[in-house]
Amino acid sequence: MATRVLVLGAGMVGGVMAADLAEEPGFEVTIADVREENLAKASARAGGRVRTVRADLSSPAEIGRLAGGADLVCGALASRLGFAALRSVIEAGKNYCDISFMAEDALELDELAKARGVTAVVDCGVAPGMSNMCAGAGEASFDRCEKIEIYVGGLPRERRWPFQYKAGFAPADVIEEYTRPSRIVEHGRVVVREALSEPELMDFGGVGTLEAFNTDGLRSICRTLHAPFMVEKTLRYPGHIELMRVLRHIGLFSEEAVEVPGADGGRVLIRPRDVISTLMFPQWTYAPGEEDLTVMRIVVTGECGGVRERVTWDLLDLYDAKTGATSMSRTTAFPCTIMARLIAKGEYRRPGVVVPEFIGREPGVLDRVLQELGRRGVRYSVTRARA
Amino acid sequence: MATRVLVLGAGMVGGVMAADLAEEPGFEVTIADVREENLAKASARAGGRVRTVRADLSSPAEIGRLAGGADLVCGALASRLGFAALRSVIEAGKNYCDISFMAEDALELDELAKARGVTAVVDCGVAPGMSNMCAGAGEASFDRCEKIEIYVGGLPRERRWPFQYKAGFAPADVIEEYTRPSRIVEHGRVVVREALSEPELMDFGGVGTLEAFNTDGLRSICRTLHAPFMVEKTLRYPGHIELMRVLRHIGLFSEEAVEVPGADGGRVLIRPRDVISTLMFPQWTYAPGEEDLTVMRIVVTGECGGVRERVTWDLLDLYDAKTGATSMSRTTAFPCTIMARLIAKGEYRRPGVVVPEFIGREPGVLDRVLQELGRRGVRYSVTRARA
Repeated sequence: MATRVLVLGAGMVGGVMAADLAEEPGFEVTIADVREENLAKASARAGGRVRTVRADLSSPAEIGRLAGGADLVCGALASRLGFAALRSVIEAGKNYCDISFMAEDALELDELAKARGVTAVVDCGVAPGMSNMCAGAGEASFDRCEKIEIYVGGLPRERRWPFQYKAGFAPADVIEEYTRPSRIVEHGRVVVREALSEPELMDFGGVGTLEAFNTDGLRSICRTLHAPFMVEKTLRYPGHIELMRVLRHIGLFSEEAVEVPGADGGRVLIRPRDVISTLMFPQWTYAPGEEDLTVMRIVVTGECGGVRERVTWDLLDLYDAKTGATSMSRTTAFPCTIMARLIAKGEYRRPGVVVPEFIGREPGVLDRVLQELGRRGVRYSVTRARA
Repeated sequence: MATRVLVLGAGMVGGVMAADLAEEPGFEVTIADVREENLAKASARAGGRVRTVRADLSSPAEIGRLAGGADLVCGALASRLGFAALRSVIEAGKNYCDISFMAEDALELDELAKARGVTAVVDCGVAPGMSNMCAGAGEASFDRCEKIEIYVGGLPRERRWPFQYKAGFAPADVIEEYTRPSRIVEHGRVVVREALSEPELMDFGGVGTLEAFNTDGLRSICRTLHAPFMVEKTLRYPGHIELMRVLRHIGLFSEEAVEVPGADGGRVLIRPRDVISTLMFPQWTYAPGEEDLTVMRIVVTGECGGVRERVTWDLLDLYDAKTGATSMSRTTAFPCTIMARLIAKGEYRRPGVVVPEFIGREPGVLDRVLQELGRRGVRYSVTRARA
């Protein structure tokens, strides 16, 4: 009998997920979204080999109903929908593999997932996702892990003045990332750094010199992995961050209401972030066919058998002109669809809410995932050397 | 009998004017403004030696009435009031010396001034003002003038991230200067360049390397002086202009209405320039006692007796801690008060509307003005050399 796989959300990532899953012999794929337009695009991308369902995914009942008819669910939802969807799928008793970034703590649903016998892998994209998996594998490979560093960025291939940046996901989430204080780990303690702080130049083969700055991206790793030093930094072309620091300094990222003259006279109350978003976001949007790239480096340093070593994973993935899928969507979708296959085939099972560092710790799984990614053209290189 | 001098406007420049004029034996100085607070400051600056009059200077009738009781009038008004005030003073038949920057063409009132026998010197500050006077003197000193270059900037002495700039006058006029296309003269024709264009680094002794960019500052010189190449550029610390170009590119200097979410819900119409002004202008305002400086260079190149020569005037003026007067207010006020004295004493007379390049062309007057400026601590150096 066929395995019925349901994909929640037919955005850029959901569409790539569905198309990839539809390639699997024995999979029957359904994709759900509230927008017909997204469903049509996803169907076209999969060569018509997926069923489409128009559904309001902000309704937990609707998600429960859809999940009820599936054997396995994959999630690619907007951040505000992620947590409720996770709960609904778990309550429906279905295994889940999800990339919906959510502000909430998914591990709060761990008990519920265990009780239902559900394996729910969350944060299973590129970063969070592969970054956690590599960090977990690195940590597990040492007797004593010293340091975990994650550097990641989604960038346009062509740098254009003045931003040298386009947003591969919701631009509002990017501004959020540029303002939220970032938690990193130093000397075994979580410390807070200002957003956009501690910029450093780093060179990446094939891209050039980029600028890395603190972002609040460690998420679950802060608690689940054990190393006295952990940091996640986001990568941009040099110059972008300085501009963002200036816009923030001017007050343009503020969400506090400010009174300004109305264009029709009188005074009106606005939030500066709404104004800068209205003006700037159209300039941050990829044009159709505009090439993006994903660059990531994970460095784990530690001691093994008395020897200090460093293991490094490097990814440089470019826009795929053949499929027209952005690099960001491919590097995000495939870790999720690969894990979904392992779960569907019973090769991976761990009831509860699973963050990808747990997967990385288990011998052999990361190698399997990297191999499958490579088959899809997403190639990580790994080096291990004395440090 | 005493000479009754009236100063219109008790802002920073008007206050410095009144205090300087009050030093002159035989002058009885009155200063007028609508704001009591400004009048009190001006009176204190002049050690109580000026009369103050509270008056609405947006009323031409009021200006006519005040001018009627004076022998000579000096103007230091907001740009929107300048032209009407000029007309009122001329109609009252009183000589005038003015620094009120105005968008209108003052020379339109030339016939009126001639008819009334009034000498009305306009644009008589630092730039416009001394820049015109030096340009006129330079042009007149050549058989054939090739090129007139004016570089000028009012800057904070201390550079602070991110703007490295504070506005010595109304910040809205600065944004206007950053958006209005700039007219320069090339090959004898007026050509238009985008605002903020053609930045170039130039070194200024005592300040360091600054960035010069096109601004629409030639004003009357375009028509009154004769040289195939003329340009005015504004000076800023390097980096400022790039930021302004970015803000303009984002659309933040636009005056076109844009719909944005209101902070109280719904949608509201705002002009982006109003928003950036509300947020940024407080950061552009000098704190009390914060030091500014004025830097200017005028270069006139030409041929004289078959020899190609270049004459250069350089000014670097610093904040005067003794008087607490900004450099911008001193360098702007003194050319006006010095010319006012020459007019009052009958040493300068030229019925009509007089732009300072006319004054510069007359032998000896510029030397006299520079000497008087020097006595007030505002020192121009002049060099003439083969080019």
